[in-house]
Amino acid sequence: MRKHGFDGPIYPVNPRVTHIGDVPCYPDINSLPAVPDVAIILLGAGRAHQAVRELAQKGTAAAIVLASGYAEAGAEGKERQQQLQQAAGAMRILGPNTIGLVNLTDGIPLSASGALEMDQFPVGDVGVVSQSGGILGALLSRAAARGLGMSKLISTSNEVDLEMADFIDYLVDDESTKVIALYIESIRNPQKFRAAALRARHAGKPVVAFKIGKSEAGAQAAVSHTGALAGQDTMYDALFLQTGVIRAQRFSDLLDMPSALSTGRKLRGRRVAILTSTGGAGTLVSDSLGVAGFEAPAPGEQTAAALRALQGDMPAALDRNPVDVTLAGLQPDLLRGAISALSASDDYDALVMVVGSSSLGNPQLMADAICDCLPQTDKPIIAFVSPHAPNVARLLNQKHIPAFMEPESCAIALEAMWQTQAESTLQAPGAVPSPPLAALLVGTLNEAQARDLFSRFGIDGAEQTIVSDPAQAQAAALRYGSAVVLKILSSQIMHKSDVGGVCVGVAPEQVADCITRMQTEVHAKTGVRAEQFLVQQMVTSGIELILGFHRDALGSAILLGMGGVTAELLKDTTMRLLPEQGGLSLSQAYDMMHDLRTWPLLDGYRGRVKADQQALAQAIVNFSNMVASLGDKLIEAEINPLFVLPDGQGVKAADGIAILGD
Amino acid sequence: MRKHGFDGPIYPVNPRVTHIGDVPCYPDINSLPAVPDVAIILLGAGRAHQAVRELAQKGTAAAIVLASGYAEAGAEGKERQQQLQQAAGAMRILGPNTIGLVNLTDGIPLSASGALEMDQFPVGDVGVVSQSGGILGALLSRAAARGLGMSKLISTSNEVDLEMADFIDYLVDDESTKVIALYIESIRNPQKFRAAALRARHAGKPVVAFKIGKSEAGAQAAVSHTGALAGQDTMYDALFLQTGVIRAQRFSDLLDMPSALSTGRKLRGRRVAILTSTGGAGTLVSDSLGVAGFEAPAPGEQTAAALRALQGDMPAALDRNPVDVTLAGLQPDLLRGAISALSASDDYDALVMVVGSSSLGNPQLMADAICDCLPQTDKPIIAFVSPHAPNVARLLNQKHIPAFMEPESCAIALEAMWQTQAESTLQAPGAVPSPPLAALLVGTLNEAQARDLFSRFGIDGAEQTIVSDPAQAQAAALRYGSAVVLKILSSQIMHKSDVGGVCVGVAPEQVADCITRMQTEVHAKTGVRAEQFLVQQMVTSGIELILGFHRDALGSAILLGMGGVTAELLKDTTMRLLPEQGGLSLSQAYDMMHDLRTWPLLDGYRGRVKADQQALAQAIVNFSNMVASLGDKLIEAEINPLFVLPDGQGVKAADGIAILGD
Repeated sequence: MRKHGFDGPIYPVNPRVTHIGDVPCYPDINSLPAVPDVAIILLGAGRAHQAVRELAQKGTAAAIVLASGYAEAGAEGKERQQQLQQAAGAMRILGPNTIGLVNLTDGIPLSASGALEMDQFPVGDVGVVSQSGGILGALLSRAAARGLGMSKLISTSNEVDLEMADFIDYLVDDESTKVIALYIESIRNPQKFRAAALRARHAGKPVVAFKIGKSEAGAQAAVSHTGALAGQDTMYDALFLQTGVIRAQRFSDLLDMPSALSTGRKLRGRRVAILTSTGGAGTLVSDSLGVAGFEAPAPGEQTAAALRALQGDMPAALDRNPVDVTLAGLQPDLLRGAISALSASDDYDALVMVVGSSSLGNPQLMADAICDCLPQTDKPIIAFVSPHAPNVARLLNQKHIPAFMEPESCAIALEAMWQTQAESTLQAPGAVPSPPLAALLVGTLNEAQARDLFSRFGIDGAEQTIVSDPAQAQAAALRYGSAVVLKILSSQIMHKSDVGGVCVGVAPEQVADCITRMQTEVHAKTGVRAEQFLVQQMVTSGIELILGFHRDALGSAILLGMGGVTAELLKDTTMRLLPEQGGLSLSQAYDMMHDLRTWPLLDGYRGRVKADQQALAQAIVNFSNMVASLGDKLIEAEINPLFVLPDGQGVKAADGIAILGD
Repeated sequence: MRKHGFDGPIYPVNPRVTHIGDVPCYPDINSLPAVPDVAIILLGAGRAHQAVRELAQKGTAAAIVLASGYAEAGAEGKERQQQLQQAAGAMRILGPNTIGLVNLTDGIPLSASGALEMDQFPVGDVGVVSQSGGILGALLSRAAARGLGMSKLISTSNEVDLEMADFIDYLVDDESTKVIALYIESIRNPQKFRAAALRARHAGKPVVAFKIGKSEAGAQAAVSHTGALAGQDTMYDALFLQTGVIRAQRFSDLLDMPSALSTGRKLRGRRVAILTSTGGAGTLVSDSLGVAGFEAPAPGEQTAAALRALQGDMPAALDRNPVDVTLAGLQPDLLRGAISALSASDDYDALVMVVGSSSLGNPQLMADAICDCLPQTDKPIIAFVSPHAPNVARLLNQKHIPAFMEPESCAIALEAMWQTQAESTLQAPGAVPSPPLAALLVGTLNEAQARDLFSRFGIDGAEQTIVSDPAQAQAAALRYGSAVVLKILSSQIMHKSDVGGVCVGVAPEQVADCITRMQTEVHAKTGVRAEQFLVQQMVTSGIELILGFHRDALGSAILLGMGGVTAELLKDTTMRLLPEQGGLSLSQAYDMMHDLRTWPLLDGYRGRVKADQQALAQAIVNFSNMVASLGDKLIEAEINPLFVLPDGQGVKAADGIAILGD
């Protein structure tokens, strides 16, 4: 603390020595001459709670407990952690099992970790909250190496009291923090996280998160397909999307993205100019931008003319993109002129500077040229360093020109800037219509009962009749036209088609035969004797979707997916978490439809008729309102398939699952 | 050259000076006292060809031409390049527009690039061939920084004579090269590349390639869907797959993969042990391995017992994976014991060591412990360095322990090792049956003609009849059962269903109406008056696929894709290039089926009947034989949809396109 310039009072407590260095030491907490603002406790798990109790009694505001051996260490540890919490009373606790925190802005390291010990902190405007102490150290050393400055570093670990969301809240208000970076293992209190992330969003402070657990098996033991399609990690995707948190996919993104975001520059479009002195590296950047969906168009006439005017009789080809200034780019005037022309051009929304080997001799030249041009524009200007030259990257980063050593990082940085403009949508929509909830069935509903439930919330089902014998079935089939769908009706068998319990396109004269066949096959495969059957109108002109509901620790979510086995295998789905109160809004429903990779199928793909998008959007909203209204009563719910008919003709739920609790 | 220890004769040629340093200079090539083995020409494009001619006349074996201003610089440059080629005669040329080559093994830099100028070369066993000189320099400096040694570096650039494949061939025979890394912009001579890559494969030298151009628009102007699905980059994927070349997806992979492959260690399964002293970083590695499809199972009973025996009374948790030795891992005996136990264990196929901050103080400790254990096993042992510590990574790499600074690189390195075991398949299968090629139609075939062509090569079409009026149509429909498919028959309209030219599931009594409706709609949309129609048996129990043919500069390829619009939008396709002679083998056809992400649909997914896989495989082979037999005559060909019926019932081509040239 002294090394980093902290000049307030420090009160070491230790009964066995009188001084630590030249700082006088106190034998116990009671002897302290004043109430400390914060205490850092270096005792083991066996004694830390005693110190916590004494500090709390003294009126200390907060304590940091470094010891391990708590909730992370089995049942006994969990008990110890409870004891610690009780000892703290109203005093706030960071930890236990944390490496503490570092306030780099003011040079106050409250940590005993060697990983955080450096002669000089890389001070800047990125605040980091990590649930792993080791990762915090790794991030700090990596940031320092690349010249990326940080404001505050906090390791929250066991989160017995203060948790990630508390520190997000703090960093939103912290003037020296412009961007918040998170390393997440698991969010303990999703509602608090949502609120804090949305506060950051509204304050215009981008939040970037790396979340461990992408590899976890998504499938849960569930009756519905939704359960298999909605993994824990997809729920985090929805949470991040809806709170405007930008997700870091690779670990390096967790520094790459903040370094770009902390410039505060605005990316207004996806057209990127690349200025290079070396062809190969320019192509490398251009190709990776292309893969990420950015464009690198050639300069328009006006821009090309401006570049040619700079060129004189130099042999550089300045009318293509990447703009290759070759070795002539070592001339400061040409370089400055080209940067100015490209960043002022209406043809481009951002500029990537490629630093080649030729610039290594005098990196200051390029840094100065870019710096001189920065004030002329608020477009992003970033750099790719092609040879191994960490010193050059560091120099540029320190001058607030985000510089990357991997070509792919340029696209990742620009994409993060692009995402800051997306709307965050985890907000309560209008009031939820409160349908009568009386007389709800309980348990696993059969298909007809599920259909009734969905229709109470405004989602139409396909026309159908329950029958118990072939004669009734045939009569019903004749009413519905030339071909019908036949199904066994059972609350015991959920995946009827897997056991031969569904016949599609049955002509009325075949209905009796079909029922006998289904009975035999289902009995052979499941042991269940089907007594009732559904005769259902056959929907032929619609597009099959799946509309489901999933709940886990993060909350309740609605899943929309393209239907049919092909789309199921290719997992073309999207999810939205519900707000604390109510269902989804219509605009969220439309967003979900657009998320599907097979969205063109709903939108008149290759001459097909347009699907009834409005009815689908309303069905999504209605389904979400059902989920919101039923609350914890609803255990599983899924419409599969939901047929979306041609525009103007609505949607039809053709099959569904619902399980209700008491 | 002197700095790097070259002690053979050097003959500078320059008319204006007598010495360069202490080396005597010759006024012209004629005055040279001996015939040089190789010449490096530093003249500009205006004069290089003269020197080339004189060197060739003198009997010089090869020359390197650094000058630019050739084929890369427009029409005039192209002419200049031709002139250069003529001047060379039988002398081999590297370049022009190259930065030359560096033989690191023997310390002979034949290059004037500052990027290749370093006091000491990182000598090792990775040979690099790059079509970009700038990238070669970037790779060398990056490799040196991480302690990865190289054998030969060659920049081929314009490839007027010597090309990438020549150097692959050379490196296959070069004893100091174990792995070959390629930076590819475009392969000029695919046959030569195939041959060279396959030679490397058979010699057991892994080839890793980074190919620029992934972002290029794949779609070409083509009548068939195949044209839209088969992009240039997908063709490269097929080429690499079939020649056993491992594709580097990110630029950093181009060093990450070779560093692992150069150890020569064998990965026999996908179960990975992770040994760490820091929880967070261990999880990071474990999660990224999981995302890439590796497993990190907990140690079995025997392994756990071996670990516990080491542990004594230390508080480390050694029976989980990641195996966390905590700070106790700083004790050399425990570390050595744990590495031995894990690498000897039958539970694991590879070991990842995590280097945390605690190891930074004494990196030699970990390096030594690993090195001591290396001889005991031939399983891969790699390392992840969590804090920024390039010196530690360098130290490990130099000791042949591949060490990575990004967690994702561990999975990428292991995946590359895994891929070296895959079979290369670009080989001629058995003799192609030569069907009678007489009486072939020329031009764009209509559907019935295309069907006939495919059936000549052994691919059955759906039953169908050509009719010209509603009465004939109705008669035909009655023969085919209760519902048929009606289509207009035209060689002008390829995508019939997009313009209302197809009716599916038409009952015989509706046939007449349907034909009138199609005529009107097609005429309104295209101006074409349909005169003939196809009445086709309706295939109901099959799975739709697309089977197509694509040709570009890399060769002719067969495309297999799941059919239907959903799969089309999600691009579930795979491709195989044909060998120089003949079609694909049956086993290649099965591989293609397995490549599809929706392969389960063909394999009895969720209680469905199995599709006739054998018939499909044979259809793929037959189609490929057709392509091989017709050669350049075939311009486009596609069966879409190809219905695969239940096992034992074969396949049916239900629609197709063929365009034949003279």
